[in-house]
Amino acid sequence: MTFFVKPQTLSFDSPLVLQSGAVMPPYSLTYETYGTLNAERSNAVLVCHALNASHHVAGCYEGQPNSAGWWDNMIGPGKSVDTNRFFVIGVNNLGSCFGSTGPMHAHPETGRIYGADFPVLTVEDWVNAQARLLDALGIQQLAAVLGGSLGGMQALSWTLQYPDRVRHAVVVASAPNLNAENIAFNEVARRAIVTDPDFHGGHFYEHNVVPKRGLRIARMIGHITYLSDDVMNTKFGRHLRQAAEGNATGYQYTTQDIEFEIESYLRYQGDKFSDYFDANTYLLITRALDYFDPARSYGGHLSTAFARAQCQFMLVSFSTDWRFSPKRSREIVQALLSNRRTVSYAEIDAPHGHDAFLLDDPRYLDVMRSYFEKQVTA
Amino acid sequence: MTFFVKPQTLSFDSPLVLQSGAVMPPYSLTYETYGTLNAERSNAVLVCHALNASHHVAGCYEGQPNSAGWWDNMIGPGKSVDTNRFFVIGVNNLGSCFGSTGPMHAHPETGRIYGADFPVLTVEDWVNAQARLLDALGIQQLAAVLGGSLGGMQALSWTLQYPDRVRHAVVVASAPNLNAENIAFNEVARRAIVTDPDFHGGHFYEHNVVPKRGLRIARMIGHITYLSDDVMNTKFGRHLRQAAEGNATGYQYTTQDIEFEIESYLRYQGDKFSDYFDANTYLLITRALDYFDPARSYGGHLSTAFARAQCQFMLVSFSTDWRFSPKRSREIVQALLSNRRTVSYAEIDAPHGHDAFLLDDPRYLDVMRSYFEKQVTA
Repeated sequence: MTFFVKPQTLSFDSPLVLQSGAVMPPYSLTYETYGTLNAERSNAVLVCHALNASHHVAGCYEGQPNSAGWWDNMIGPGKSVDTNRFFVIGVNNLGSCFGSTGPMHAHPETGRIYGADFPVLTVEDWVNAQARLLDALGIQQLAAVLGGSLGGMQALSWTLQYPDRVRHAVVVASAPNLNAENIAFNEVARRAIVTDPDFHGGHFYEHNVVPKRGLRIARMIGHITYLSDDVMNTKFGRHLRQAAEGNATGYQYTTQDIEFEIESYLRYQGDKFSDYFDANTYLLITRALDYFDPARSYGGHLSTAFARAQCQFMLVSFSTDWRFSPKRSREIVQALLSNRRTVSYAEIDAPHGHDAFLLDDPRYLDVMRSYFEKQVTA
Repeated sequence: MTFFVKPQTLSFDSPLVLQSGAVMPPYSLTYETYGTLNAERSNAVLVCHALNASHHVAGCYEGQPNSAGWWDNMIGPGKSVDTNRFFVIGVNNLGSCFGSTGPMHAHPETGRIYGADFPVLTVEDWVNAQARLLDALGIQQLAAVLGGSLGGMQALSWTLQYPDRVRHAVVVASAPNLNAENIAFNEVARRAIVTDPDFHGGHFYEHNVVPKRGLRIARMIGHITYLSDDVMNTKFGRHLRQAAEGNATGYQYTTQDIEFEIESYLRYQGDKFSDYFDANTYLLITRALDYFDPARSYGGHLSTAFARAQCQFMLVSFSTDWRFSPKRSREIVQALLSNRRTVSYAEIDAPHGHDAFLLDDPRYLDVMRSYFEKQVTA
């Protein structure tokens, strides 16, 4: 069932002190809500987004076909996260490029486009900004905070930064921090952007160009890490986009043109992404991923870090996710168990790799439905 | 024991017809030899190189410290491949950038630098060129052909193209073809090079520039795939290059500067590579990798493809190699067994990922020594 939604915007006039010590000048956040806040204001579910997503979590925009939110399969009337019961909030994070204040906007005092001077943000900063939004909406405590991938990190951080403001944390396809390989992929993507001559040190807006070459490479790398080896082989294998005639192999024998289907797919994804995503946002968000590490201030001991958490937890991982493997989710489960927290954990046998958290796997959607129906009180 | 070697060069005046149908004009190959060819000319071992290597397989260059060949730990007097017994040949492949004719050289008729017009090469073409070199050296049959990674593909192809010219094929950390993910990584690396404004469509030589940005990205991606997740975590983990003072995390909070050790390592590797590797060579060699697929002309049936092979085989894989995993080597073993070929197979439990084939794992070097001592006749 399609339902229509409209984004809203809230301005925050008091500056936000960031984890880095820098100060975020007055800013605005774009958000959407689905369902109705109950009289006790106790049925709010906050959805945190990952790298490439936004506040537009569910529903459609009127008059815009194909405008369904990125988790529309999960969230809505009668869905796993049922908006007949819950008041769901999607919020675009600071520094993003989909509505909230980001590097493409002007500093309110100087009037100059932030560009590369936008403050460096962390998951903790996003959570602080989200908490302020909840204050403005008059919500003291969340029924649940929910997120996948980087969104899952924000959900985890909520339980540590505001332990008494969240009753459940649902953390999907996430990790307690990035490992060296995760950081490595982020770094290559960032280097591709930063070394694109059209990046101009992050001040490309005033040159009226966009570092599309770098953004394309960044997105291609991302896509490789989002898919499992298996699903890539099933979907693309070694299929040629167009077999050449007149030779036994069907190869065109070209080093620069597309030969294999997988190349065509990656180039298409890269092109599409470079048309809408902001280069500085990409740097900021990947850096927030790199920096997230709640155990860091506790000598690397995740269980010590989670001693503060009070809520109940649900963790979900996917068997073929090699970006944030089940092993990483189990580390979180173990840290919570050692603190005698209530934890549910589902390891879904799904072929799709990291991307599975956005897809329609029935077991996954059922597990989520079951948790929200039976565990999360409104 | 250090021994000194000197590269040699042989010119081939008759053109080489390539798999693509194109014709390679007269060219030269640079090669080295170690040990002595016996009177029966029966003790020759050909070593085929991978992406980034050359004819300089073993020994050192006089007066050049740190000039040991890339497989010097494996090959030499008294080593696993003992040059007191075997006459070992290392040859730089066509299209490479270390001596043999490549895209940075001039077309012998037009005098123009080949650049992007250098013919597209395949593993099969390299093997044909190597066979001509053996003809010139008066070697009819190899005691063994040996290679790792892309070099292993050449060794495999030898057994199919010249089944009666090779008695043993030793194939290390290789695969019967690239899977979609392997091609995907190659394609991202190529796009980074091709879209670098300094690439000039492959004719950058005449502009006196080098597409270093693209080469750096290509190499960084490569390095990620050469290392295992485990070894990256052990070696780099989340270590900061230099912890900032005055905050609990030690982070500098920067999106463009180096924060983590792994970033520093990758940038260093990328910089180094971009100083010496040719961009067109990178395209040619990764494309040869993409194209290799001996089963392709046999309806995808590897066992049918290997029906032609006559020699004995030794395959080696490494447990943590995710670029060419043990599974891929086992596919080859299975195809050979189904043809009742004599096959040895060693799966080495090594932490280093794909790079392991170049490293000093004692079990690996012992397995190779044992095979060359006990199975390979001189």
